[in-house]
Amino acid sequence: MRIRTDFVLRDIGQLLTMDGNGSAGIGLLTHAALAVSDGKVVWTGSDKDLETYCTLQSDTEIVSAGGSVVTPGFVDSHTHPLFGATRQDEFAMRAAGATYQEIAAAGGGILNSVKRTRSASAAVLEENMKHHLSIMLSNGTTTVEAKSGYGLDLITELRCLEIAGKVAGEVPQTIIPTFMGAHEVPVEFKGRPDEYIDYLISEVNPRVKEQGIAEFVDIFCEKGVFTPEQTARYLAASTDQGFALKIHADEFYDTGGTAVAVKAGATSADHLLSISEENIHLIAESKTVATLLPGTALFLNKPFPPGRKLLDAGASVALATDFNPGSCFCDSMPLVVNLAVCQCGFTVEEALVSATVNGAAALGLEKHKGRLVKGFDADFVVWNCADFRTIPYHLGNPDVAVVYCTGLKVYST
Amino acid sequence: MRIRTDFVLRDIGQLLTMDGNGSAGIGLLTHAALAVSDGKVVWTGSDKDLETYCTLQSDTEIVSAGGSVVTPGFVDSHTHPLFGATRQDEFAMRAAGATYQEIAAAGGGILNSVKRTRSASAAVLEENMKHHLSIMLSNGTTTVEAKSGYGLDLITELRCLEIAGKVAGEVPQTIIPTFMGAHEVPVEFKGRPDEYIDYLISEVNPRVKEQGIAEFVDIFCEKGVFTPEQTARYLAASTDQGFALKIHADEFYDTGGTAVAVKAGATSADHLLSISEENIHLIAESKTVATLLPGTALFLNKPFPPGRKLLDAGASVALATDFNPGSCFCDSMPLVVNLAVCQCGFTVEEALVSATVNGAAALGLEKHKGRLVKGFDADFVVWNCADFRTIPYHLGNPDVAVVYCTGLKVYST
Repeated sequence: MRIRTDFVLRDIGQLLTMDGNGSAGIGLLTHAALAVSDGKVVWTGSDKDLETYCTLQSDTEIVSAGGSVVTPGFVDSHTHPLFGATRQDEFAMRAAGATYQEIAAAGGGILNSVKRTRSASAAVLEENMKHHLSIMLSNGTTTVEAKSGYGLDLITELRCLEIAGKVAGEVPQTIIPTFMGAHEVPVEFKGRPDEYIDYLISEVNPRVKEQGIAEFVDIFCEKGVFTPEQTARYLAASTDQGFALKIHADEFYDTGGTAVAVKAGATSADHLLSISEENIHLIAESKTVATLLPGTALFLNKPFPPGRKLLDAGASVALATDFNPGSCFCDSMPLVVNLAVCQCGFTVEEALVSATVNGAAALGLEKHKGRLVKGFDADFVVWNCADFRTIPYHLGNPDVAVVYCTGLKVYST
Repeated sequence: MRIRTDFVLRDIGQLLTMDGNGSAGIGLLTHAALAVSDGKVVWTGSDKDLETYCTLQSDTEIVSAGGSVVTPGFVDSHTHPLFGATRQDEFAMRAAGATYQEIAAAGGGILNSVKRTRSASAAVLEENMKHHLSIMLSNGTTTVEAKSGYGLDLITELRCLEIAGKVAGEVPQTIIPTFMGAHEVPVEFKGRPDEYIDYLISEVNPRVKEQGIAEFVDIFCEKGVFTPEQTARYLAASTDQGFALKIHADEFYDTGGTAVAVKAGATSADHLLSISEENIHLIAESKTVATLLPGTALFLNKPFPPGRKLLDAGASVALATDFNPGSCFCDSMPLVVNLAVCQCGFTVEEALVSATVNGAAALGLEKHKGRLVKGFDADFVVWNCADFRTIPYHLGNPDVAVVYCTGLKVYST
């Protein structure tokens, strides 16, 4: 039986299906075509075989890619886009030599964003999020995780997640909200992190669950924020409450957060700038995705994460932007892919797989996103180039031509 | 007498005149206006004083900046945009662990570009250059230096400079062509660099001068390319022939190229990744501009250039992209400004001055470009932000709203 299709992209010079075959699994097809029905990929193959396998109906939309590269849309699995104001003032202070302590003393850091997020109107929060989602779309990003975590109280955290849900319904991309009440200890609980964890577990998590506004929780396990013990306790309770888990681990110090994540069965452990050799092997042997955020290393002038070591150890490695107003105001997945190649030892193919397939796995979407194979969502990018290696090679200005979400054209240059 | 003006930009939230006053000389005016006549800046000041000083005629075009930031356009004083083909294949080989020698053995490197540039049609060379100039414009770059140097023979070098001249007449930006026949030793002169230098001095330089198609010459002083002695000889002869001088110095090895540049009175010495402490002080005490290209360090995973040390020593430091198909396929000045801040120790203000005022000085245009003061060309960018510190803070996606060259709107988002 031939396949019915309502949209076909023909004359694709290079189609990266990411089907697991070929170098690093990119599943490269040349002179290819891609057929879509009801927003899902229904067939990919050689352009000349299209009519053999697919029924082109009178109303099937047929578009030529003109010999261009087509890839799955990027899956940005770690962002903090719910904030009240940007922090370019702190960026400039840091550039002028101010220390973290000096910036904090001047009212800076995460708690600065908390103050400005609590006082921001819903309209401002929504506008900030939409503005950057729109930029992300123009950079080829079709799925975006969106963390709360600049509220740190019941009202603001719920408000941010509700806004994320509202925005999700109004943008072309797929948005996955994550509850990150455990981003920092708020002023109301200063010096009492355990009590704040209790509060989250007993007061906030249940409300988030009840409203069904986040599938994941996330926590910042770091010296001066939450200890590995507090992290483990929060993750265990969240698991019992039915949440999937994420963690900010081993970013500035090797506190062993990765081991906590693996033990708790977290879907991903993120940052890992300071991960130990031991924990590289631990995460490689686990199902937890190692999510690297090289833009943050660049932004903060820290050593880049050990991508090559994690890949060589066999870890599933995702790449994401960490877009946030403090430590990485970067909404470009193409730049992140370049940084992975130029600074973290990825091959071009590994970087593209990490930014698509593994990003999807880091969100539990490995059956729906990140690949262009039968049954997956038809989220893809037509690039203004004929060689996929150009994607990270062209530094600073991505060659995105057209972006499709679930088979619909949602952006073009 | 009041000032006549044919174009006025009003309601500028922050105008960076770069007049030498204030922090690092950015000359910040708030609630400002900018008046233009015949493509030149004729007045800047407080918006409320506009009518006091300027005559607004019936046909004066009046535009509101809506409270946005306005800066001079970027001056990208070091690029190689005249090439026949891109080299993403070598980029991918390097990412997969190939050494420089392995890439060269596979036909890679500058000589690969030479082969592909010699065989390229004029239409292809022109199209490549125009394509990237157009991207540069969308990134706020209004003046671009353009080197030849992928021809390495009389015919191709002249052809490339002629194309640069033709393109210069067809794009909105100001283009400054530079003759870089001494980019590498061509295969015809393999092992005979001194004879190639003789050839350039006696055969090619005079023709370039005669045709008036380049004001500067440039030479790659590097281990395995041209020695400091060969460089000094070429620069001395070029000076005698009436050229201004540029040099690729101390990029991979500290060969002392900077000292050669200073002694020869070069307008700029570029790269300087490996400059010695001694030569940092030497260039700081000279009139030679130190041009840094941090995109290349990022692209090649080399240590970033010692920006802070050069600034502290008192050097005039310019920032540029080094856009080229091999070692830095980056056409984004905003990214370079970010790298200067995040990786090279610049303050935000210093980075912006280096990318405008000092870029102009590196091209001998310090009386015409890089500032928005009376008599200077009205090349400026209206940014989609209200705080100039956002320019480097927003990593990967520049907030360019509108670009003007000599008072004419030539790009808008």
